[in-house]
Amino acid sequence: MRVAIVGATGAVGQELLAILEERSFPVSGLRLYASPRSAGRTARFRGEEHVVEAVPESGDLGADVVFSSAGGALSREHAWRWAEHAVVIDNTSAWRMDERVPLVIPEVNPHAVAGHRGLIANPNCSTIIALMALAPLHRAFGLRRATVATYQAVSGAGAAGIGELREQSAAVLASGTAPSGEPLGASTTPRKFRHQIAFNLFSHDSDVGSDGYNGEERKLALESRKILDAPHLAISATCVRVPVFRAHSEAIHAEFERPVGEEEARAVLATAPGVRLVDDRAGNTFPMPLAASGGDATLVGRIRADASLPGALALFVAGDQIRKGAALNAVQIGEALIRG
Amino acid sequence: MRVAIVGATGAVGQELLAILEERSFPVSGLRLYASPRSAGRTARFRGEEHVVEAVPESGDLGADVVFSSAGGALSREHAWRWAEHAVVIDNTSAWRMDERVPLVIPEVNPHAVAGHRGLIANPNCSTIIALMALAPLHRAFGLRRATVATYQAVSGAGAAGIGELREQSAAVLASGTAPSGEPLGASTTPRKFRHQIAFNLFSHDSDVGSDGYNGEERKLALESRKILDAPHLAISATCVRVPVFRAHSEAIHAEFERPVGEEEARAVLATAPGVRLVDDRAGNTFPMPLAASGGDATLVGRIRADASLPGALALFVAGDQIRKGAALNAVQIGEALIRG
Repeated sequence: MRVAIVGATGAVGQELLAILEERSFPVSGLRLYASPRSAGRTARFRGEEHVVEAVPESGDLGADVVFSSAGGALSREHAWRWAEHAVVIDNTSAWRMDERVPLVIPEVNPHAVAGHRGLIANPNCSTIIALMALAPLHRAFGLRRATVATYQAVSGAGAAGIGELREQSAAVLASGTAPSGEPLGASTTPRKFRHQIAFNLFSHDSDVGSDGYNGEERKLALESRKILDAPHLAISATCVRVPVFRAHSEAIHAEFERPVGEEEARAVLATAPGVRLVDDRAGNTFPMPLAASGGDATLVGRIRADASLPGALALFVAGDQIRKGAALNAVQIGEALIRG
Repeated sequence: MRVAIVGATGAVGQELLAILEERSFPVSGLRLYASPRSAGRTARFRGEEHVVEAVPESGDLGADVVFSSAGGALSREHAWRWAEHAVVIDNTSAWRMDERVPLVIPEVNPHAVAGHRGLIANPNCSTIIALMALAPLHRAFGLRRATVATYQAVSGAGAAGIGELREQSAAVLASGTAPSGEPLGASTTPRKFRHQIAFNLFSHDSDVGSDGYNGEERKLALESRKILDAPHLAISATCVRVPVFRAHSEAIHAEFERPVGEEEARAVLATAPGVRLVDDRAGNTFPMPLAASGGDATLVGRIRADASLPGALALFVAGDQIRKGAALNAVQIGEALIRG
């Protein structure tokens, strides 16, 4: 199968290459695309260097499957033209809510792939990581309402976000130490983010609407309803950027059509595909971004009866934002296509 | 007024000294106490060095007001004996839920000070910061249920926690940089915490009970009920330690006896004592730990109608854990005592 990656030099593009190799995706040909600025660079795949090209005007990317992760603007403009020549798996937010476009987490709604018209959307990272735990619970108990607070890694803002956390943190640590043991603090100059991210956190850096919810929070609600085919599902999220490199965590309270016990919830999650329970109360070990980073599984723990509402649940999840939150999920969609 | 500080060399003890000076607390004499290991050290107050003494066996600390912040064990053993000679304002968890002991946030329940029997408890930091926003809403609308996800600074674990975040972060940054821009990662050896805190986060490091809630989460629920005199208040918290030095943040969903609109909630919070609204949607600027650090106010923002439940609210708060979460609140209790 001939594969193209648009946005090959970005954080997700690089991870796509690694995962295609890891999972022995049947790649018979590989074309790498990026902005004209990055054209001419090379990237390694199965021991060979591949030259990165500028995205052509023609719309024909010379591939059967296109993984698109070069930003919403490019995808909004070109995705359907690319789809005349290939199946496009789009990692941007451009077409996720378009009713012609399936929005797919392969563990959750693989059947949706079948109805595609050349374009399949990869959900937002925080949506994927939440639903890896909530979807099996929904199937078993009927999810009615969820409140979510996220702890999102800087990788969601790409390589620039990663670099900013690294560089700012070094500057703050180099600023000297106050008697209290804290760094004195450096005057950081945020570039990618509006606020300092080193040793700080802030409400997610997407635009805030008139209802007070930001874009990330709106995605989590709207995409969840589409993926679960649950148009009346009530979700309220607070999305927060934290000084972590590449895995998102989420604290979730969930209410169901019928009262759910802690043990039956744990039993459902224990056998949920792509989920690994990390729920060691005695050892005080639960999902952590560091443990989720570099792995495929979404870690789920802190599973407990919600003390504030009989029959409801509380839980905590963590997943690699670049892998399951983006590149891995996209490759899994590709695998589902191949399986037919 | 003769003042003693037990635990004078700790993070909270040092902040107590600074705040007593800042607020011109009427200190006619000052005695500083700590463990025998720290005895002989000195601390500065109003330009003079004071020698730190070991806690005496007698129970008489030579003071009218004792600020105790040397850990629960010492307080459990000695607090009532100290209280034979002075009014003890206890910053540990030892006596908070004892029915003989008022648990006081001066902006919330100052009247409770009047009934003291020599011992007044300072609430847990995450409780104080949550209630600075929830208490005025409770008075106006009748709080019925709250779900809380915290983002807690390492200062809650004292100077050792602060040092561990600083040192681990430096080690991770010195480990080299992967092609993705992330640090390669160092093998850290956690001492104060069970897990790496640098560029990571984890479920709060207090013991987890059979109901799945940890000690910090239990404190938040039980103390809130006592302070608000709301024995049936339903609270479920998920308490999480994040790589931030000294301010806690909390994402809160709250339900009330009567439906609450966003504007009336904002009006209540705008005039709440000790609260500063930071709720700039256009500028995407909301409460952040860095902005709360070193200040007295609890920052409140992201005030919005909860999209998942008509009449409910969502909000986000941040407050300095060492100041309002501990030392400042304790000094304010002392001021309330003086006012009578």
